[in-house]
Amino acid sequence: MKFIDRLLRRIEQVDSLVCVGLDSRYDRLPDFIKNQDITKSAFQFNQKIIQVTNQVAAVYKMNVAFYAGFGAEGLEALRQTNLYLKKNYPDIPIIADCKRSEMGESTKMVKQEIFDWLGFDSILVTPWFGQDTIKDYLDDETKGVGIYVHDSNPSAGEFQDLKLKDGRKVYEAVAENLVKNWNINGNVFVEAGVTYLPQLKKIREIVGEDMLILVAGAGSQGGKVEDLRGLLGLNNQRMIVNSSRGIIFAGNINDSGDDYLAKVRIAAENLRKSLQML
Amino acid sequence: MKFIDRLLRRIEQVDSLVCVGLDSRYDRLPDFIKNQDITKSAFQFNQKIIQVTNQVAAVYKMNVAFYAGFGAEGLEALRQTNLYLKKNYPDIPIIADCKRSEMGESTKMVKQEIFDWLGFDSILVTPWFGQDTIKDYLDDETKGVGIYVHDSNPSAGEFQDLKLKDGRKVYEAVAENLVKNWNINGNVFVEAGVTYLPQLKKIREIVGEDMLILVAGAGSQGGKVEDLRGLLGLNNQRMIVNSSRGIIFAGNINDSGDDYLAKVRIAAENLRKSLQML
Repeated sequence: MKFIDRLLRRIEQVDSLVCVGLDSRYDRLPDFIKNQDITKSAFQFNQKIIQVTNQVAAVYKMNVAFYAGFGAEGLEALRQTNLYLKKNYPDIPIIADCKRSEMGESTKMVKQEIFDWLGFDSILVTPWFGQDTIKDYLDDETKGVGIYVHDSNPSAGEFQDLKLKDGRKVYEAVAENLVKNWNINGNVFVEAGVTYLPQLKKIREIVGEDMLILVAGAGSQGGKVEDLRGLLGLNNQRMIVNSSRGIIFAGNINDSGDDYLAKVRIAAENLRKSLQML
Repeated sequence: MKFIDRLLRRIEQVDSLVCVGLDSRYDRLPDFIKNQDITKSAFQFNQKIIQVTNQVAAVYKMNVAFYAGFGAEGLEALRQTNLYLKKNYPDIPIIADCKRSEMGESTKMVKQEIFDWLGFDSILVTPWFGQDTIKDYLDDETKGVGIYVHDSNPSAGEFQDLKLKDGRKVYEAVAENLVKNWNINGNVFVEAGVTYLPQLKKIREIVGEDMLILVAGAGSQGGKVEDLRGLLGLNNQRMIVNSSRGIIFAGNINDSGDDYLAKVRIAAENLRKSLQML
């Protein structure tokens, strides 16, 4: 099944645009689950989070760096989490937030790393190196490819907002090329930050109502969910909104397991509700 | 010691601008060394290559993807290689070609992954996300930070060569910001491809004679070493020229170990010589 169709079906199934960011860095795990074993702690934490959020999650997204920062043991926790998801919740797609952008032979290696070894269904890559470095990811339509078009961080605009001679801005050129030339297999989607609202509006205008947009920066980075009104695309179903720390670290570090997970569940449900009300 | 000073000392020491790209993907290893054990095969191959190239190598560079593509066992080979280099050849800096570009908290994680776990001295990152995602890498001057300013792949120019309203091209804006604003700790260098010669010349003009440029695309990607004449910077010592396949896979797949390694040694020495003659 095509990645995008799978994701759209899932959005419909749970009536949710929530992307749960499982950025479960070991050093920030709550007391009730954390022990000396990095793999076990991070994997078990993810299991618990998944158990209380799977009815709300349209998709899970992991930033690979938060696992690779703890070496082989961290990456093993990530791999086990994806295996667990595939076995128990096969309907929920999993996105690798990893900013890999390779070319030619090394793209094949990244696909082996991210899809075959770690078990993701989708990858996020930067457009900086151009189409030939993107199209190597596109041949398998069961795998999604997200492009960082305009990001949420403070200096995202340093190059992305530069004005071109032809009147467009750089990120607009990326959005145009993406929708016109890159999306040949229908498995491309956009990553953009809600913290730059005019750019997000412009991106929706360029890529159309049909294209899926993954939105970062809502919640902990200061973006407001209400700002997304009118930008959700076709049937209000062509956007997924990521929250990482806002959901997985919603509890206090010394809460009991039950208390902690109740707060996680509520945070995820609240995000779903606030998106449903747009 | 500052990363850049260490690298310049090494260039002087071996009178060489050669960057040996240890992109030792397991599936391409020659028969004399390859067995079922991925970690052992790749690590032992690297040891042999290092033994015949260390007198010529100003620096070693590994594309992390060529190891991560073979999972935890591949990454372990990479880690063991860096440990081996640090123990036996501590004067030779090691660069991670990994195109990581994170922001804020996740940058710290990439530093843990690349510097602490895998043991690199330097990282290559894309400029796409702007200064705040770069400066998190800059605080430790013993670590080098290379920026992909203009790459060697066919569609590198899709965005990097776009013309800005102010007359510059996008990659020129990157080069200017890099030299004016980013290089506060003196540990920034440029990555650029020799396959786009006019751009490489322009980059040298912008960043000045003092800045180190790592050049990709010589040899297997069709760039000519002779094209680098006049672009080597101060004392003809501010450039390193990468060759990966051209050196490490210089032998035939079924050569004896001695024959294979003799070809590797000669390929590396030939590159040094042709750079010395510029």
